[in-house]
Amino acid sequence: MALASRVESALLAAVDDADTPDAPPLLIKALRHAVFPGGARVRPQLCLAVAKACGDDRPAVSDAAAAAVELIHCASLVHDDLPCFDNAATRRGRPSVHAAFGAPIAVLAGDALIVMAFERLALAGVAAPLRLAPLVGVIARGVGAPGGIAAGQAWESEPNAPVDVYHQAKTGALFVAATMSGAIAAGADAGPWGALGETLGAAYQVADDLLDAVQSAETGKPAGQDALLHRPSAVAERGVTGALARLNALVEEAVESVPHCDGAAEMRALVRHTAMRLAPKQLVRSVA
Amino acid sequence: MALASRVESALLAAVDDADTPDAPPLLIKALRHAVFPGGARVRPQLCLAVAKACGDDRPAVSDAAAAAVELIHCASLVHDDLPCFDNAATRRGRPSVHAAFGAPIAVLAGDALIVMAFERLALAGVAAPLRLAPLVGVIARGVGAPGGIAAGQAWESEPNAPVDVYHQAKTGALFVAATMSGAIAAGADAGPWGALGETLGAAYQVADDLLDAVQSAETGKPAGQDALLHRPSAVAERGVTGALARLNALVEEAVESVPHCDGAAEMRALVRHTAMRLAPKQLVRSVA
Repeated sequence: MALASRVESALLAAVDDADTPDAPPLLIKALRHAVFPGGARVRPQLCLAVAKACGDDRPAVSDAAAAAVELIHCASLVHDDLPCFDNAATRRGRPSVHAAFGAPIAVLAGDALIVMAFERLALAGVAAPLRLAPLVGVIARGVGAPGGIAAGQAWESEPNAPVDVYHQAKTGALFVAATMSGAIAAGADAGPWGALGETLGAAYQVADDLLDAVQSAETGKPAGQDALLHRPSAVAERGVTGALARLNALVEEAVESVPHCDGAAEMRALVRHTAMRLAPKQLVRSVA
Repeated sequence: MALASRVESALLAAVDDADTPDAPPLLIKALRHAVFPGGARVRPQLCLAVAKACGDDRPAVSDAAAAAVELIHCASLVHDDLPCFDNAATRRGRPSVHAAFGAPIAVLAGDALIVMAFERLALAGVAAPLRLAPLVGVIARGVGAPGGIAAGQAWESEPNAPVDVYHQAKTGALFVAATMSGAIAAGADAGPWGALGETLGAAYQVADDLLDAVQSAETGKPAGQDALLHRPSAVAERGVTGALARLNALVEEAVESVPHCDGAAEMRALVRHTAMRLAPKQLVRSVA
């Protein structure tokens, strides 16, 4: 099955399992709204690609890892859009979860998606018990304190956030979780895959800064939010052309970082392809 | 070591591990504020007591389970106090997390505490890999959708919440997670311990309703919130005397439900003792 289809199936199974007759209907609707339809699904596809490069001998485990990574990404978007953070009324051109269901349900939907991520790992981990502890650990590090997404977001409440630490936590950590969990799910050593996640995370951050600076249609968020909220940004630091050059350099670095394995060539091609999907379309066209 | 000391040590280790030089300081302060000083620590002590009744052959694993249960309880209080829910300025006589650190940090602290719970399980689970999947599963069911705390809270956004389902999810589910995770942590069959958690959860809910109706000092919340917010309550349903009788009946039922095991007598004594700690002090004195 293609990676994209595996990701959608795994996510659908996760949300469907929560949708029982005894579940509170609004919460379940909100979970579905938060997960479907998705964005580019960059992180879970990256997770599965790494698993594939490492042999993918337990597809149910790598599917669970990919679902976990994406469920956590969705949770972070739901909480990010809340009135007390970005107060975003829309997300991917539709109402954000809090706009559609209210802030209480949005807080709870984010919580439930985080929990669901770990539950999917446990469910698949029964068949591969030795992989479960490192999987839960690596995903937890990608989302919690001290260095995961929640920590990254928390830096926005600090007067003097160190930019690199902030970006690594807010964006890099979940990419690292994606690559490393893919390797663990396939029974491989995760260490060598950390650099790929870190570099792709940094590339994604630059791409996101570019997107924020140049247009709003693809994110569904108003343009120029970073400047408006005085967030550090690669565009503020280097200008659009400089940020694009930085993006290209990071993509090359990511390609170079792919560890030696049977699927390395395919993996490198996917990294380039993914990187092209990250950048704002009109800029990619202008430099392609 | 006494159960209470083990709980505090396990919680301290969890929060200390997140307190690294690279962590965002406000978030870490908020995590500490949310966890220390604690309330009665009823759930984690219950978890350890069950583990002890089952032999407790892996104390590091039962400590992790107890910490996980309490971290999730703390997370639920932090999110519960948010302006979009109870909007509580105080908790246990101190400022609530959002009052002290702002709503954004409070949302993130709750998220990070949930993640920390699973991370503690993974850390201890390395030494007992076959117990990890059921542990993560049982804790996840206690907090997520369809029937955990988040689902329980979500019923408050529904026009017609079935009272039993609502209470079981909002309060019972984490008590069930506490008893069952204690059994799993000790390598025992968790199934027979579910009823104890369920019954104690129901008892706790009645005690909480009584507390809400009669006084405010112990919870730090203004009295009469349930009536004010039209939440279902055992007091509204049965009056104070009827609710007290119901509490006593549930405690007896909980005592009866303790499965046959070496530590059963000690466990039954602890259930009675715990139940007495649950009820509002002035009512316990009046019926003692």
